[in-house]
Amino acid sequence: MYYFDWAATSPMSENSIEAYCNTARNFIGNPSSIHGEGFKAKEKLEDYRKQIASLLKVDSKTIYFTSGGTESNSIILNSLLRSPNPGQVIITRMEHSAISSYESILREKGFDVKYLNCPKGYINPEKLIPMLNSNTRMVVCMLVNNVVGTIQNLKRVSEICKNFKSSRKIHVHADAVQAIGKIPMDLLDLGIDSASFSAHKFCGPRGVGILYNKNNRILPISSGGGQESFLRGGTENLAGISAMAIALKDSLNKLELHYKNVESCRNYLEKALLDAGFSILSPLKESNLKYSPYILTVSTKNVPGEVFVRMMDLERFCLSSGSACSNNAKGNNVGILRSMGYDEKSALGTVRVSFGYSTDIEEVKLLAKKMIEVKNNLSFKRN
Amino acid sequence: MYYFDWAATSPMSENSIEAYCNTARNFIGNPSSIHGEGFKAKEKLEDYRKQIASLLKVDSKTIYFTSGGTESNSIILNSLLRSPNPGQVIITRMEHSAISSYESILREKGFDVKYLNCPKGYINPEKLIPMLNSNTRMVVCMLVNNVVGTIQNLKRVSEICKNFKSSRKIHVHADAVQAIGKIPMDLLDLGIDSASFSAHKFCGPRGVGILYNKNNRILPISSGGGQESFLRGGTENLAGISAMAIALKDSLNKLELHYKNVESCRNYLEKALLDAGFSILSPLKESNLKYSPYILTVSTKNVPGEVFVRMMDLERFCLSSGSACSNNAKGNNVGILRSMGYDEKSALGTVRVSFGYSTDIEEVKLLAKKMIEVKNNLSFKRN
Repeated sequence: MYYFDWAATSPMSENSIEAYCNTARNFIGNPSSIHGEGFKAKEKLEDYRKQIASLLKVDSKTIYFTSGGTESNSIILNSLLRSPNPGQVIITRMEHSAISSYESILREKGFDVKYLNCPKGYINPEKLIPMLNSNTRMVVCMLVNNVVGTIQNLKRVSEICKNFKSSRKIHVHADAVQAIGKIPMDLLDLGIDSASFSAHKFCGPRGVGILYNKNNRILPISSGGGQESFLRGGTENLAGISAMAIALKDSLNKLELHYKNVESCRNYLEKALLDAGFSILSPLKESNLKYSPYILTVSTKNVPGEVFVRMMDLERFCLSSGSACSNNAKGNNVGILRSMGYDEKSALGTVRVSFGYSTDIEEVKLLAKKMIEVKNNLSFKRN
Repeated sequence: MYYFDWAATSPMSENSIEAYCNTARNFIGNPSSIHGEGFKAKEKLEDYRKQIASLLKVDSKTIYFTSGGTESNSIILNSLLRSPNPGQVIITRMEHSAISSYESILREKGFDVKYLNCPKGYINPEKLIPMLNSNTRMVVCMLVNNVVGTIQNLKRVSEICKNFKSSRKIHVHADAVQAIGKIPMDLLDLGIDSASFSAHKFCGPRGVGILYNKNNRILPISSGGGQESFLRGGTENLAGISAMAIALKDSLNKLELHYKNVESCRNYLEKALLDAGFSILSPLKESNLKYSPYILTVSTKNVPGEVFVRMMDLERFCLSSGSACSNNAKGNNVGILRSMGYDEKSALGTVRVSFGYSTDIEEVKLLAKKMIEVKNNLSFKRN
């Protein structure tokens, strides 16, 4: 198998698996227990919190362990439901369903949900200014878009929200699962209030994630057993957290190396596919736009992305027709691409190629060759 | 270390660790992806669902994978918040904080939260009858109490709720984390609508759990990426689920063997501690009451449970002064014990001994000896 679906999930690294096993074997206590095994586990837990905070260059008090990106997002969005009066929430039109699926409950509870447009995958932060009002509670904008890889100007989003004169602070939340371990990221500089991360996107375990949160007014729906400073109940998954910590360390240590390799893989593929008549939906190399090289999304226009992906699967290449999480909720990514301004044919024909730490250029050359072959065969059959 | 805090958490078994590693290495795809690796992962996921359903003797459509007991409880309780009109919710006074911490948001949202008393750790299901009304939405009652080990008559609770004549079906939910893999349990016979389970209580991994749910009107706050039939979003933790499946299989295969061993350990300890002047707060062997032998809770009366547990810790025995999860939220278990009718001195002096699959009688003899020694020393110092 040639794996080009790293944005959906990545294989757990051997270092991460080893850490998982070691921790599971050697730290058997519940970190909340008041005996030796409990203290040992608690100490290790706080140690990992410090390690991760230091890797992300933030205060360890702002790091909360969760079961993944979806839950990290939920903790922040659920807190809106604790508010005695509903207000306005602004969400970009290209959010992952972990965020966009909140629309129904927010509207149900009387919130005014407004959308920020994202032509070609980019929000224009200045468009926020006329949207903000004294009822605005939260602005939610992802850092790297999972469908096309565009990077948003979150720093400007934060500035605008901070500068808005209102008695109420506006919380800025970012789903940053496609950014961490892949592109340089400075959370303090971005100025956002919270961000979500998922370990399995950077070769850590599934079912473990991080919530970065600076806002101490975030209230959970339920605090459960009081773990994670009462923000996320449930016995802490220490083995998973240790596996995440090492995976994050490894990813950040080699970020530049990986980035450069993936960048050349992507650029090779962009050129090869452009030359072969594919539409490139992700920003072009020559555009000077900010994007993650880990995602390259193209369109055949002629055939549905799903058909193309299945044809490629027969050739043992793993690609995506959009975000894996949304294949259950068909049409979601097509909707997102349409909202980005792509015509229906392009949106329906979308194929996402996503790269990872072990992607190599020879594999990518084979991929390009096969994608062109499949496109030509399919076009021939259609004509 | 002598580990007697299995009700807080249990060590992950070697079979479980092995399954985790094998799955992490061999099933790298996202079950939602539409390529070979995705299909392979999806097939395995549904295979584990069937295995677990078969072990629990229920329909696989009623099995949902979650991040643990707390989240399983939350999915059911959060669904109340989707209701357009608040109603009545009845909760027993001895619920774990994963349930009882819902009181504030439910009241905040206009729900009428009523409590069912539990003298000496037992609800009287008949007391429910006058409490039910046409607004009753849910009754929540744990199966095995984590503080004293009492087993509730959930079958009668379900019957009463089903027999109540109302246009609205009353949902009966049970937190059953202390029951699974330890006591015989027949979910269909209990007649409950939903139940929560956590893998780390039966030597599976932390951060993985099961929600059993028969009620198709349960709505999540957010469906995320649509996983788990839109009830629990987030990329499925396949390695964790495989590790849970084998741990559950092993536990259920040896349930009777483990039960008998633990029962004799518990009975030995009960007698030794009774003879030495401890108060036994869990039901006595001779009582003919239904209880789990995996938990034996006693009180020194003379010293706070926490002090006793710390003294025992110096002797390398791991015990609990209540539920580990609640040590962060001090006083919770004391409150629960007081509500069960125990006097304040007994409640404050509580020490919980909990047993597991590898507990052996020699260890228990040492434990009894040491507990008596510590008690005598402390009493001496107090006098």
